[in-house]
Amino acid sequence: MNKLIEREKITSKKEKPDPSSLGFGKYFTDYMFVMDYEEEKGWHHPRLTPYAPIMLDPSSSVFHYGQAVFEGLKAYRTEDGRVLLFRPEQNIKRLNRSCQRMSMPPLDEELVLEALTQLVELEKEWVPREKGTSLYIRPFVIATEPSLGVKASKNYTFMIVLSPVGSYYGDQLQPINIYVEDEFVRAVNGGVGNAKTSGNYAASLQAQQKANELGYDQVLWLDAIEKKYAEEVGSMNIFFVINGEVVTPALSGSILSGITRASAIELIRSWGIPVREERISIDDIYAASARGELTEVFGTGTAAVVTPVGELNIHGRTVIVNDREIGEISKKLYQTITDIQLGKVKDPFRWTVEV
Amino acid sequence: MNKLIEREKITSKKEKPDPSSLGFGKYFTDYMFVMDYEEEKGWHHPRLTPYAPIMLDPSSSVFHYGQAVFEGLKAYRTEDGRVLLFRPEQNIKRLNRSCQRMSMPPLDEELVLEALTQLVELEKEWVPREKGTSLYIRPFVIATEPSLGVKASKNYTFMIVLSPVGSYYGDQLQPINIYVEDEFVRAVNGGVGNAKTSGNYAASLQAQQKANELGYDQVLWLDAIEKKYAEEVGSMNIFFVINGEVVTPALSGSILSGITRASAIELIRSWGIPVREERISIDDIYAASARGELTEVFGTGTAAVVTPVGELNIHGRTVIVNDREIGEISKKLYQTITDIQLGKVKDPFRWTVEV
Repeated sequence: MNKLIEREKITSKKEKPDPSSLGFGKYFTDYMFVMDYEEEKGWHHPRLTPYAPIMLDPSSSVFHYGQAVFEGLKAYRTEDGRVLLFRPEQNIKRLNRSCQRMSMPPLDEELVLEALTQLVELEKEWVPREKGTSLYIRPFVIATEPSLGVKASKNYTFMIVLSPVGSYYGDQLQPINIYVEDEFVRAVNGGVGNAKTSGNYAASLQAQQKANELGYDQVLWLDAIEKKYAEEVGSMNIFFVINGEVVTPALSGSILSGITRASAIELIRSWGIPVREERISIDDIYAASARGELTEVFGTGTAAVVTPVGELNIHGRTVIVNDREIGEISKKLYQTITDIQLGKVKDPFRWTVEV
Repeated sequence: MNKLIEREKITSKKEKPDPSSLGFGKYFTDYMFVMDYEEEKGWHHPRLTPYAPIMLDPSSSVFHYGQAVFEGLKAYRTEDGRVLLFRPEQNIKRLNRSCQRMSMPPLDEELVLEALTQLVELEKEWVPREKGTSLYIRPFVIATEPSLGVKASKNYTFMIVLSPVGSYYGDQLQPINIYVEDEFVRAVNGGVGNAKTSGNYAASLQAQQKANELGYDQVLWLDAIEKKYAEEVGSMNIFFVINGEVVTPALSGSILSGITRASAIELIRSWGIPVREERISIDDIYAASARGELTEVFGTGTAAVVTPVGELNIHGRTVIVNDREIGEISKKLYQTITDIQLGKVKDPFRWTVEV
């Protein structure tokens, strides 16, 4: 496999940014991975090449008709200097599911894993060592046929770029405030809500801005049909702890199938705590809170792993969760997943892959 | 105004394609218009520049989070050699509405009209003369900030490209067959269906492919909530003629507000024929057809102006419309709009603008 991936050397290395000012997705490493697709040739010319701007025709279909899918995962630095990936094969599988929904050609999953591993290996020194930092990995596919006909593109480019990142919400695990959005809608069954495609994110920005203006950190999306059932939060899946049981919205078709979500469900169940995946109405959440049974709310996602929720605004009514303190399940989940990711504890599920 | 737009000269002109093989959006002219946006500077540096690939950072937000909006309109060649635009100010207004929904900065509408006019003027010889041909004008805005944070981009590029095009469906006005889609969904209220944004088109491709495989030309989308009410067809708005009255889906929030749609409504009403904009269930369409009252179905859009529909597949039941013949209203509408566009008749509504 190694021989298949061509390498072009950089002429000079970039200076690495100060680890305390990394932020998210602002700095990029020296190399990237690129591969092309043409209808006649299929995917071809996989290559590790210096990170640089790409040239595209102004009529490239990604600019007009939005065929674009992506993934996000991280490489973590262990205390003894190794580099670990967290369930990369799950991201690659989901990338192909997204491609399928968006009428884009599937990728060879083994080749993508090999490319990703080789790229991270080559850029190992870019994996930061400071607490809460990691090397964010962004594989993505864009449609590049220079044509304005509305149809699936005949040409695509697959790329992987790497960005050293800090902790998503800053240094501390801190409860966030969430606005339950009842005007704007993210996705609907039969749509593309379960694909990691660019348009879903553009469609979410206005609601996010509205929530921010109202003093909230993130939006909780409701279902499009009845505007009643919890779906997901900004870029995370959502969990509620009610009466000692954990509930999370079932993957109805309009919800992104989070890899941290799946890992959280598996872990919590392994602790003997029941997890139900089902439709959850926001009114039931409110009622549970009124009865004092809602003890924790948290989000899960690659960027922040586990994010406790301290306040929900449900149609103008404020629900304070666990006195704005981090709940026990949230804390244990965050600790366990990050410990596995950082190689600090045994990895009973074999989730990590060493680079 | 003229002085504000910088011009960079091309060094050699492209050869013009054979007018009989134009197709749609395959060939581009010698020049394009470009303007940049930065948060601090606003929109700046408007310029007419040689048509050429653009350089973008791989982390540009359009590739990841899909902030991209566009418009489509045409320049027509009259018999006496003039060049006419059809209601360009409407496209520019809609472009700004799309920008607003997608959290993108608004454009100066006068400047855009001036840029568009100057570009077409400069490329006048590219407006083809053959029957059914025109010069397609594609203004579009893409997000260019090199950052992977999910948020509205701080940088954008606005471009206008020009493409000489043939008739969308070939030379003849010919009835098409439509599949009423009841699995996939295009848009939902609270979403972005009424914005001309790239993600809507990517989201439509799989249903379009399915319809093609089943032997249909286009998809008729139903509403996302009840999957019952007609919304729009592929890239057109839809009209039904029932009992001598014309009905078209009301602009519910998930339907694109077509400029040809608005023009068609105005024209048909001017002929003394009632036009109702309302919710239309697909079952009512079927029932009207069974009673022999559905006499015409047609789509409207910039690409094909008016497209008669000869057959509808409604949940597996076939509805033949008007014996697959072009209806009178469809024919008259096509004739009248194209005559106005080509300057063959008086323009009572002042829809055309001479370049």
